[in-house]
Amino acid sequence: MASTGRPSAGSHQSCNRALELIASRRAHHLEEWKELVAIPSISTNPACSADVARAAAWLSGRLSAYGASRSEVIATNGHPLVWAEFPAERADAPTVLVYGHYDVQPADPLDLWESDPFVPTERDGRLYARGASDMKAQVMATMLAVRAVAEAGPLPVTVRFLLEGEEEIGSPSLVPAIEANAERLRADVCLNPDTGMIDARTPSIRYGLRGIAYFELTVAGPERDLHSGSFGGVVHNPAQALAELIAGMHDESARVTLPGFYDRVRELDAAERDRLAKVPVTDEDIRTLAGVPTLWGEPEYTVVERTGARPTLEINGIWGGYTGPGQKTLIPARAHAKISTRLVPDQRPSEVRQQLEAYLAAATPRGVRWSLTELASGDPFICDPDSPAHRAFAEALREVWKAPPVLARIGGSVPVAADLERLLGMPSVLTGFALPDDQIHSPNESQDIANWYRGIEAIARFLYRYAETALAPGGAGT
Amino acid sequence: MASTGRPSAGSHQSCNRALELIASRRAHHLEEWKELVAIPSISTNPACSADVARAAAWLSGRLSAYGASRSEVIATNGHPLVWAEFPAERADAPTVLVYGHYDVQPADPLDLWESDPFVPTERDGRLYARGASDMKAQVMATMLAVRAVAEAGPLPVTVRFLLEGEEEIGSPSLVPAIEANAERLRADVCLNPDTGMIDARTPSIRYGLRGIAYFELTVAGPERDLHSGSFGGVVHNPAQALAELIAGMHDESARVTLPGFYDRVRELDAAERDRLAKVPVTDEDIRTLAGVPTLWGEPEYTVVERTGARPTLEINGIWGGYTGPGQKTLIPARAHAKISTRLVPDQRPSEVRQQLEAYLAAATPRGVRWSLTELASGDPFICDPDSPAHRAFAEALREVWKAPPVLARIGGSVPVAADLERLLGMPSVLTGFALPDDQIHSPNESQDIANWYRGIEAIARFLYRYAETALAPGGAGT
Repeated sequence: MASTGRPSAGSHQSCNRALELIASRRAHHLEEWKELVAIPSISTNPACSADVARAAAWLSGRLSAYGASRSEVIATNGHPLVWAEFPAERADAPTVLVYGHYDVQPADPLDLWESDPFVPTERDGRLYARGASDMKAQVMATMLAVRAVAEAGPLPVTVRFLLEGEEEIGSPSLVPAIEANAERLRADVCLNPDTGMIDARTPSIRYGLRGIAYFELTVAGPERDLHSGSFGGVVHNPAQALAELIAGMHDESARVTLPGFYDRVRELDAAERDRLAKVPVTDEDIRTLAGVPTLWGEPEYTVVERTGARPTLEINGIWGGYTGPGQKTLIPARAHAKISTRLVPDQRPSEVRQQLEAYLAAATPRGVRWSLTELASGDPFICDPDSPAHRAFAEALREVWKAPPVLARIGGSVPVAADLERLLGMPSVLTGFALPDDQIHSPNESQDIANWYRGIEAIARFLYRYAETALAPGGAGT
Repeated sequence: MASTGRPSAGSHQSCNRALELIASRRAHHLEEWKELVAIPSISTNPACSADVARAAAWLSGRLSAYGASRSEVIATNGHPLVWAEFPAERADAPTVLVYGHYDVQPADPLDLWESDPFVPTERDGRLYARGASDMKAQVMATMLAVRAVAEAGPLPVTVRFLLEGEEEIGSPSLVPAIEANAERLRADVCLNPDTGMIDARTPSIRYGLRGIAYFELTVAGPERDLHSGSFGGVVHNPAQALAELIAGMHDESARVTLPGFYDRVRELDAAERDRLAKVPVTDEDIRTLAGVPTLWGEPEYTVVERTGARPTLEINGIWGGYTGPGQKTLIPARAHAKISTRLVPDQRPSEVRQQLEAYLAAATPRGVRWSLTELASGDPFICDPDSPAHRAFAEALREVWKAPPVLARIGGSVPVAADLERLLGMPSVLTGFALPDDQIHSPNESQDIANWYRGIEAIARFLYRYAETALAPGGAGT
C-alpha cells in the first residue's frame, strides 16, 4: 500500500469491513464479554487470587486468538499484567496504548444483589454483574474492536494493550512495571476507556482526573475494651474521639480543614468554567441519581466543578466497638476509619498525607493516640483536550452518536494517566461507555448493552480516524 | 428453739459450723463454680439459647441439691428465670431475696483471649473465663454460702433466689416476671452481689446505681453506596454526618449537650460529696486501670463522682461503609452507632430518649435522615445506706476483711434494683466480690479466687448478723 501520508481508499474500505464484522457479531461479542465477567477477579480479596490470575490468562489467550502478534502475562509482586501487540502495516503509523483493568471491586453487601454478581444476567437491555461496567465492558469493547480492525485489513495504527489486575487496590505494581517495560509500552497516546459517559445521549471525553490519597486512621485509647458503666465519664471514648476528629475535617462551608489543603489547588479560570458549564449535568440530575433529599458541598462551585475540579475528603468506612445485634456496654479500645482524599492539579498525595498528619497532631485530644496508614495514592491529571488523538476520538464519537462529545473533567481517580504522563510523557484519551446509573462499586452493577455495542464501533472508527489525522500533513504525532 | 427476739447461743454455734463447712469445701466449691462458668450462656446470641436454658436447669438442680425446699425454672418470652426458697425456722425471721444473673456477655474478640473463654482456667490465683466474675462467681458464692448455712443448723432468715438469664441484654422479661410472681419474691431486702469491690483490701457496699438508656442510631443518605470519586463533594456522606452528630453530643467541658439532659439530675450535696471523697480511688488509679495517657470528663467533679453520681453518654459501637482489608472507594448509604446514656436520679430513660430525638431533629444536616431504636432502658437507683440490712452486711464484711467497708455509688446499671424498689418497695444491698481489674465484658475476664472464698464467708456471716439485727428490739424490719 502506498505510503502517501493521506488516508487511502483502502483505509475507508477496511473501516467499512470492520464495522460490518462488528455489526454481524453482536451475539458472539456478548458471549465473550459474559465469559470474562463471570470470573470473580476481586483484587482486594486474597481468596480470589487464583480467579484474578485466571482472568489474566483468559485475556492473554483471547488477545492471541484475536490476532495479536505477541501476547504475554507479566508477573508482578501482586496480580499479573497482560501485555499484547497488534502491529500496524506502515512503519510510520502512530501507536496507541490501550490501558484497562480486569480486576473488580468486592461484591458485598451480597444480599442487596438481585442476581448473583458473578453470573452475568441480562435484564431490560442491561448486563448485570460485578465488573459488567467497571471496566470489563470497556476492556472487551476495545479488544473486540481491535480484533475486527485487524481482520478487516491492514491495521492503520499499532495497538498495544496493557491490562492490569490491581486498579481497584491502588495499582501497587503498575509504576514498577511501566518502568521495567517502558520500550514495550511506548506509544503516541494512551486510550483509556475507564471514565464513561455523561449520559446515554452524550458521548464524552475527559481531560482531567482527580488524584487520590487513601488512608486508614486508627484512634486508640484504653489498653482494652472497658465497661462503659465503670469508665464512662472518665476516659475519652476512642469512637467519640474519632467522630470528633472526622467532624473537624470539614468546616461549615464543606471545605476541607487540613492545613494547607488548598494551597496547590489550581483555581478554575473563566475559560474552563465556561467549558464545564456546557456539561449537561444539573443539581437535580445528581440529586436524583444519588437518591438524597438535598445536595451538599462547597456552595460557590457547581456540581460539575465540585465533582471534577475541586478536591474532597470522604469517609469510606468507619468501625469500632460492638457492632453485632443487641447491646454491649463497652468503651472500645480502638476505633478506625478509612479516609480518602480526591486531589486536583497541583496537589500531591505525599503532601496531603503530611497535611492530614499535621491536622491529627494538632486536633487529637490528649486522652487518645492516633496512627495513620497509607493504602493508596495517585497524582491528579490534566491534559490538552485538543490533541490529534482527542480530535480523532471526538470525531469517531460524533459519527456513532450523531452528537458532539462533551469535554469534561471527572471525579474518579485513574492514577495510570498521571503515571504514563510522568514516566513516558504520554497523554491519554480518557473515555468509555459506562453510564452514571451503572452503579459501579455498588450492588446490582450493570452496563447498557446497546451502548456497549456503540462503543465497539466508536473505537474501531477511532483507529482509522487517528491514523488519518496523525499521518496527514501537519498532523504529526499527537 | 425459743423465740426470744435475741440472737441465740445456737445461732452463734450454727454460724461457726457454717464457716467450718465453707472452709473445708474450698476445692469442691471451685469445681462447682467452674461447672457453671463452662456453660456459654451468652444471652444476646441466639445460637446460645440452648446453653442459656442449660445454665438455668443446672442452677435449679443445684439449688434443690443444696437444700432448697422449692426450686423452679420459670419460663418467660425470652430466657428463663430460676426461683428457689430456703425457709427460715422462725416465722418472724426476715426474708432476703438473692438476685443474680447467670447470662454473660459475648466473648469476642476471641483472638485476644489467652485461654478459651468457656474453659475456666486457673492462673496466678485467678479463674479466667467469660462470666467467671460477672457474675457467675457472685451467684455461686451466694448459693454455696446459703447451702452451708442451711446445713449448719436452722436457717436464721428465709432466703429466696431470683436468677435471670437476660441481664446482659437489658432484662426484657424481668419486670413482667416480678409483677407475675410478686408474692413469691416478696422480701425485706434484696441481696444483689453484682456490683463488686473498690479494691481487694476494701469491701464495698453500693447505695446508688446509674440507670441506662441504650439506643441504635442510623444515619441514612443515598439510596445505595455511591462511588466516592463520582459523588464526593456533592452528597453529605452519612459516615461523616454521623461523626458530626456524635461530636456534637458533648461540649468542650465533656458535658452532654442533649437538650434538658441535666434538668432532673440531683446535684450532690456536701454530705454526699464528703462520703464519696472517702472512696479510696484516685485519678491515677483509674488512669492506670484503663491504660490511658490522661483522663477525661467534667472537670468540676472527681472521678468517683463522675463514674457514680454524674450522667454520661457513650459510643459503644460505630460502623458503616467498607471495613475490610485494603481500600474501597465508596460513600456508604448508611452509618450506624450504638449509643448508651448512664443516668442518675432523677433522670428517666423515656425522657432521655425524647432529649436525644430532639437533639437529632435539630442537629441532623438536611442531606441525611436519622432513625433511632431503643435497645434497653433502666431507671437509676439510690437507697439509704444505713438500713439494718446494710449495717448487717457492713458488719459481716468487716469481720472477714478486718477493714471497714466503703459506702459508694457505682457507674454500672443494675436496673433490677430500681425495679424491685418501684414494684415491691424493696431496698437492695448492692455488693459483691468482683475487683476492678477483673476485665468484665472484655477478653481475659477473671475473678480473684481468694477473694471469692472470702465472699462466701461474708455472705454466710451476713445471714446470721441480719437475723440478729432485724430481730433485735428496735431493729424491726429493714
